Amino acid sequence: MKPVILFAAGATRWRHWEAPLRAALDEAGIDAELVTEAEPETVDFILFAPGGDIPPDFTAFTRCKAVLSLWAGVERIVGNPTLTQPLCRMVDPGLTQGMVEYVVGHTLRLHLGIDAVLASQNGRWNPAVPPLAGERQVAVLGLGALGSACAQALAGLGFPVLGWSRRARDMDGITCLHGDTGLRTALSQAQIVVTLLPATPETENLLNAETLALLPRGAALINPGRGTLIDDAALLQALDSGQVRQATLDVFRTEPLPPDHPFWTHPRVTVTPHIAAETRPPSASRVLVENIRRGLAGEPFLHLVDRSAGY
Amino acid sequence: MKPVILFAAGATRWRHWEAPLRAALDEAGIDAELVTEAEPETVDFILFAPGGDIPPDFTAFTRCKAVLSLWAGVERIVGNPTLTQPLCRMVDPGLTQGMVEYVVGHTLRLHLGIDAVLASQNGRWNPAVPPLAGERQVAVLGLGALGSACAQALAGLGFPVLGWSRRARDMDGITCLHGDTGLRTALSQAQIVVTLLPATPETENLLNAETLALLPRGAALINPGRGTLIDDAALLQALDSGQVRQATLDVFRTEPLPPDHPFWTHPRVTVTPHIAAETRPPSASRVLVENIRRGLAGEPFLHLVDRSAGY
Repeated sequence: MKPVILFAAGATRWRHWEAPLRAALDEAGIDAELVTEAEPETVDFILFAPGGDIPPDFTAFTRCKAVLSLWAGVERIVGNPTLTQPLCRMVDPGLTQGMVEYVVGHTLRLHLGIDAVLASQNGRWNPAVPPLAGERQVAVLGLGALGSACAQALAGLGFPVLGWSRRARDMDGITCLHGDTGLRTALSQAQIVVTLLPATPETENLLNAETLALLPRGAALINPGRGTLIDDAALLQALDSGQVRQATLDVFRTEPLPPDHPFWTHPRVTVTPHIAAETRPPSASRVLVENIRRGLAGEPFLHLVDRSAGY
Repeated sequence: MKPVILFAAGATRWRHWEAPLRAALDEAGIDAELVTEAEPETVDFILFAPGGDIPPDFTAFTRCKAVLSLWAGVERIVGNPTLTQPLCRMVDPGLTQGMVEYVVGHTLRLHLGIDAVLASQNGRWNPAVPPLAGERQVAVLGLGALGSACAQALAGLGFPVLGWSRRARDMDGITCLHGDTGLRTALSQAQIVVTLLPATPETENLLNAETLALLPRGAALINPGRGTLIDDAALLQALDSGQVRQATLDVFRTEPLPPDHPFWTHPRVTVTPHIAAETRPPSASRVLVENIRRGLAGEPFLHLVDRSAGY
């Protein structure tokens, strides 16, 4: 009997995913039923992304070997009490690459003062040479797959990079810090802070009035991680006071960001519409299919979520 | 007798260069007279940058071992018929680093569509995900110290890079092309073109109506090299027709760029005031002093200009 793979991520996504998923299954030589509807007790794997307001019920999926998330962030499913099957996060090389491009691009934009360049096409020749990257301290909060790739790309361009993670880490070319003391050290030195932590109870409002006050005055912030990492009201206050000179935000507590949210009109905020960590179906399909192959062969899954940590 | 080093680059520059030059001489253990005025026949080395409209006369500097340019570009001195002494270009690691930051920063700006992001902070959530770097062909024209550093940094971020040079070259990770046919191949594929060639009679107006027409429609241009590489009128026409979607220009035929020049107001042109290749006195002083040490020891100079090639 062919294994049954249920695509449970909505009709819109199905249009983008069906072809690359079938191609990846062919490439791996797996003969499976890839469907968008099935009797729960017949399903071997669920490909999942949040689609509605009501969390799904996984109870009836009795033969399901794993739930494979299309998203890197699993906070909307990890706490689901009906989910007893193994849960795997998406670690998509295309997504990681896109994130690196976003983070390096916006870091260089802030570093080189590109906004001011674009705003001063006025006939005045005013050569102001920015400092070199070596004089611009960057901190990357979160050293998972995305954070560590960004930290290394920034270090490769000459930025001194402080990396911070919950647990102690060690990475070539990055000054690694951890724990509460490490966070305070990182923030007190960073001219540009990049937040790439998962959304967990521990990371909620990590950047708040107290921690934002630790930054050198005029530091900038790039958040392509999760909206819950930042206390919005505290950030707006820090922007108004000049404590934070610029915030480039890709993720928000409510998405789409409501049209009347003050971030849209604040002169020191740049909003991007959750585009930094876009899963790319061709590369991501190969990751999903590799986990399906592992599940069928009884091998350990890649990117298995630690349910107690939440990611 | 102590060697005499004449700083012939103007009083303004002297203020920025004196301290780093003295520090570099100390560091190298060279006991020399570093002066801004001297009898020509007493001078051992000239540190030179163009300062006035009249080309200097080097005839009387009979014991001068070398003229060391503070600038990477030597087109304003190389043809001076009185210059019979060896001439060395500046290859400053700080300048190279600054150039890499400029080129990578503006390439990512164009690649990610950052101008459009900044112009659309209007409350409309419109997720448009740019392609990955791997799908964005870049061409770097010129593979000298600056061009090859930029080509490698762009390739390191995932861009496919075509490199073009006058003579055949070979570089890891870069598809190297040369000669007239190579130029046509590079231009016909490039979505973003970076020009980092020296100003010579051969490179004048390299980008003209005919060569700009080879580009795929909507390609973008970054010129941090030399103003003479581009036929300004042809570029303006290509921008107006949409053949070139954006030009980011750091160098011009006349600098400062006159306030009434159409580049300042053209909606598809970004002017930066010759800041991409700023020599950084601390790192550049160490390069100059290394050449002074070599001259005193009778060793071959670094970055000696090929007078027939002009760079």
